[in-house]
Amino acid sequence: MARSLLSEDLLRRRQGVLSPTYFHHYEEPLIATRAEGVTIWDADGRAYLDCYNNVPSVGHCHPHVIDALHRQASLINTHSRYLHEAIVTYAERITATLPPDLDMCAFACTGTEANALAYELARAVTGKTGVVVTDGSYHGNALAVADISLYSARPPEHRSFVSAIPPPGQSCEDDAARAEPVIRARSRSPSGLAMLIIDPIFDAPGIFTAPAGYLAELSQIVRSEGGLVVMDEVQAGLTRLGDNMWGFMDSGIVPDIVTMGKPMGAGYPLAVVAAKRAIFEEFAATERYFNTFGGTPVAGAVGNAVLDVIEGEEIQRNVHEVGRYLVNGLHQLTDQFGCIGHIRGKGLFLGIELVKDRSALHPDPETAAALVNRMKQKGVLVSTCGQLDSVLKIRPPLIFSQDNADQLLDTLRAALHEHGARPFEQNHNRQKNAEGNP
Amino acid sequence: MARSLLSEDLLRRRQGVLSPTYFHHYEEPLIATRAEGVTIWDADGRAYLDCYNNVPSVGHCHPHVIDALHRQASLINTHSRYLHEAIVTYAERITATLPPDLDMCAFACTGTEANALAYELARAVTGKTGVVVTDGSYHGNALAVADISLYSARPPEHRSFVSAIPPPGQSCEDDAARAEPVIRARSRSPSGLAMLIIDPIFDAPGIFTAPAGYLAELSQIVRSEGGLVVMDEVQAGLTRLGDNMWGFMDSGIVPDIVTMGKPMGAGYPLAVVAAKRAIFEEFAATERYFNTFGGTPVAGAVGNAVLDVIEGEEIQRNVHEVGRYLVNGLHQLTDQFGCIGHIRGKGLFLGIELVKDRSALHPDPETAAALVNRMKQKGVLVSTCGQLDSVLKIRPPLIFSQDNADQLLDTLRAALHEHGARPFEQNHNRQKNAEGNP
Repeated sequence: MARSLLSEDLLRRRQGVLSPTYFHHYEEPLIATRAEGVTIWDADGRAYLDCYNNVPSVGHCHPHVIDALHRQASLINTHSRYLHEAIVTYAERITATLPPDLDMCAFACTGTEANALAYELARAVTGKTGVVVTDGSYHGNALAVADISLYSARPPEHRSFVSAIPPPGQSCEDDAARAEPVIRARSRSPSGLAMLIIDPIFDAPGIFTAPAGYLAELSQIVRSEGGLVVMDEVQAGLTRLGDNMWGFMDSGIVPDIVTMGKPMGAGYPLAVVAAKRAIFEEFAATERYFNTFGGTPVAGAVGNAVLDVIEGEEIQRNVHEVGRYLVNGLHQLTDQFGCIGHIRGKGLFLGIELVKDRSALHPDPETAAALVNRMKQKGVLVSTCGQLDSVLKIRPPLIFSQDNADQLLDTLRAALHEHGARPFEQNHNRQKNAEGNP
Repeated sequence: MARSLLSEDLLRRRQGVLSPTYFHHYEEPLIATRAEGVTIWDADGRAYLDCYNNVPSVGHCHPHVIDALHRQASLINTHSRYLHEAIVTYAERITATLPPDLDMCAFACTGTEANALAYELARAVTGKTGVVVTDGSYHGNALAVADISLYSARPPEHRSFVSAIPPPGQSCEDDAARAEPVIRARSRSPSGLAMLIIDPIFDAPGIFTAPAGYLAELSQIVRSEGGLVVMDEVQAGLTRLGDNMWGFMDSGIVPDIVTMGKPMGAGYPLAVVAAKRAIFEEFAATERYFNTFGGTPVAGAVGNAVLDVIEGEEIQRNVHEVGRYLVNGLHQLTDQFGCIGHIRGKGLFLGIELVKDRSALHPDPETAAALVNRMKQKGVLVSTCGQLDSVLKIRPPLIFSQDNADQLLDTLRAALHEHGARPFEQNHNRQKNAEGNP
């Protein structure tokens, strides 16, 4: 499909002035011009159902959130060395959603900053620097948080303080038992063990949920070695998994530190670190932390407005119900199409694994990529994840409705039918031939 | 002065739920409720002249900026994997203000994130990890950027890759010549030399400007060792120093990387890393960088609106003229009051050094603190900086007018008069006596 002149021109300008680290979704890039609820319109006025974006958590451009942003930005927006009620109220409301032990907050702008602060808290409290993470996980884009993000390809010498445990759910072994020797070895290493940082749902390897007892067992092992348990709720939090406000609550554990980011400000850069009081107090005894844009009146007003919607529109119930409806529909598709290996995930954080052969479960990234682009042509936005990008990632705004789910399912079914007309082997051979005959 | 019930209550709630790392300005904290231009109103409706805040760069709640924020937030605010014109236009406008070599941008939310990315660029390009900074400088709040911020008290083992050079202007020696052996030793160390990161104005030690040729000489030494020169414009940039758009331009050098933060979004979390194309390309060959909230349509719209005001309201000329007027007024005060040691800085980034004795120049933090609180009572907001917090820091919004400068000068004069009624020695003895007689 030829690119429009408009997108050609914008892409050329963009490539001229933005770092080459900026890449774009889809073969034919989307010029995102307007959005509302679960709909994004492109520059030609074409509507797309957004099944991918978690940042506009309560829907794109929610009027209550926009009003709060506008009202507070028009009134005042200073840093936290003056007093303002909005951020205090917000901290009270956030801690009220957490187990009683997690009774204090600090604010930042991004999940990266929140995880960086969590790591600093863990270093200050334990006196150690070592970290255990699940393999392939992503916890941020900067320096030590990038070094502990095994998602990216970093030189091992930057990672001498990091140990990786396999994410759960990929084998039949006992996941926590496999992790135990890694955690104990990190604790005995020169860097010691400052923290385990872990997601409640593992999207980098392809959206695996933790088996029952997994997080509790890991926490017990980590604490027996003197380390802290940090739950990264940047992706899974704020009702995304449907059963609770925060993903870790599904497992019944109480972490030492919880980090929150992306969805909290519905687009406004707002991140939170919640922790036990004693941890902040020990940190504050020797360290300072000030974040100019963290905890401003606007951040507080927007955060409060998002919580208003989460509570007032019964978002968690919606996530639970629509998530379950969607999973049922996806299982029906699985029965019809042999190229779907598994349906994974929970709530409105779902993965559809594409395979070349369901019995052997060979990942099929080509089909995943073809479906993503075909569905986009049909007006539905999804993306991929997993080690080989063979898993369709479904992670829409939390207000996603049953009708939206039907549209997603119908579009996916149509795309699968169209794609199914071309068998995988033939496709694969054609590509090989094409490479041989330039 | 007794605190109001309102501020007592809010402070108690705040201390109950926010990390103890949150401290507040002034003995009697200010509940900042509304702001416009250079004025902040407290909860009792009392107006204060803001002589301190650099984040509301074009004035608190500038209508053009608020309109752009509201308009774009109401339309769409997605991440940069969809195309949008605002951030491309913004990158074109930012690079147009820089020397031609600095022709590419990446976006983040905070100065911390910008400096972290700059460090990652320098590591990728040089293959080294060592850093040279000026002593006492602050470059961010997270992990390695906190480790290279000698402003805070971090354990030396976290800083094995950092060397400090003295900031310029504190002695009669040749500043660059004193720095040279430190830079060369860092380069010969196991970590090597990735970068020098340096401010165009040195506010942590008390707002010193660089002597002529200083930055050029340092740059030459750093480059002869294969390191990159990173200018941290988070505080000094966007016309703050009055002669140029960016502080480094005063010295005529061309850095390899420039980082920008605080004032860029006039309150919205917006930070920029501008660098030579080859640097971004080398980084992108091996590394990824994605910042969810960096370079969104709202960030672009707000950044463009701030640039509109900077250009349309001739902000740089205002900074230059009002800055000069203010320095003249402060020099007149220096003639009247022996407790003023020096007037330092440039543009609208000025320091007033308080001393116990002008001949010996002993720093006087007590007088500085007393003046800050007394001026606040009189409706003028300033703060302190310097190693002992003995320097009044004057860093108002860039739209600060000659009338505002007169109000600041009149209030400072009155506060000095009132304070001057109590000689330092007597004051000092009374405090000592009080300590001896609890």
